[in-house]
Amino acid sequence: MPKRLTHEGAECPVARAVDVIGDRWSLLIVRDAFDGISRFSEFQRNLGLAKNILSSRLRELVAHEILEVLPAADGSAYHEYALTQKGRDLFAILVSLRQWGEGHLFDEAEPHSVLLDVKTKRPLRKLEVADAAGRILEPSEAFVRKVD
Amino acid sequence: MPKRLTHEGAECPVARAVDVIGDRWSLLIVRDAFDGISRFSEFQRNLGLAKNILSSRLRELVAHEILEVLPAADGSAYHEYALTQKGRDLFAILVSLRQWGEGHLFDEAEPHSVLLDVKTKRPLRKLEVADAAGRILEPSEAFVRKVD
Repeated sequence: MPKRLTHEGAECPVARAVDVIGDRWSLLIVRDAFDGISRFSEFQRNLGLAKNILSSRLRELVAHEILEVLPAADGSAYHEYALTQKGRDLFAILVSLRQWGEGHLFDEAEPHSVLLDVKTKRPLRKLEVADAAGRILEPSEAFVRKVD
Repeated sequence: MPKRLTHEGAECPVARAVDVIGDRWSLLIVRDAFDGISRFSEFQRNLGLAKNILSSRLRELVAHEILEVLPAADGSAYHEYALTQKGRDLFAILVSLRQWGEGHLFDEAEPHSVLLDVKTKRPLRKLEVADAAGRILEPSEAFVRKVD
């Protein structure tokens, strides 16, 4: 199998990010980790994913230091996967994926899970791109400056 | 080839979103569209992607109404791909991917492209998950309520 083209050396942070995390299963594993899932068997049950694919995705997420392997909290022989700080910093990506999905991929009457603030039980604020002063920006109001 | 498992009927908006957009090339095509790229040959040159894969990804993005096909602005026989409103609404996802990449995937001295506000030429505000009142939330301060 030819080696997948990577963007490891790319100057674009989006390209490097999708290289690391732009895969359906990796994103869903991270979602599950945010939901408190930590064991192989739980990921497997929740995602309905072949064990070899799950193994390989978990291994990649550990190699990228998004997940770390810890001994099981209950002292058993199992081990657990936990988000590192780098992994927890994916939160805004997951929330923006969720909000886009909520806005565009469900019929009006169609139920979907919701992400709520623990304290108030209310939905979170919509993530919107803003300038340094907090003014919301349209895509046309931002531009990429490439490296010289 | 077995049909890829989809999450079309999923109750989780993240699962539906990654189904539609959680693919390296789709995300990079959308990134390029935000950067003003509109023609097949430009996407191809910029992404260095095999034509058949680019065709298939563009077709999927059009089928999902993220891109639309328009006659070329210059009146030539070519056509162009443009982001729809649904596509432009992916902006927060792309910006959060970029910001995570900037924060975690570059060495301190390593140069990378930057996304700037057209008006002030300054970097954008960091996207942070917040409650309805605007208070920034840690991942542990939010929870998913599943559909009953």
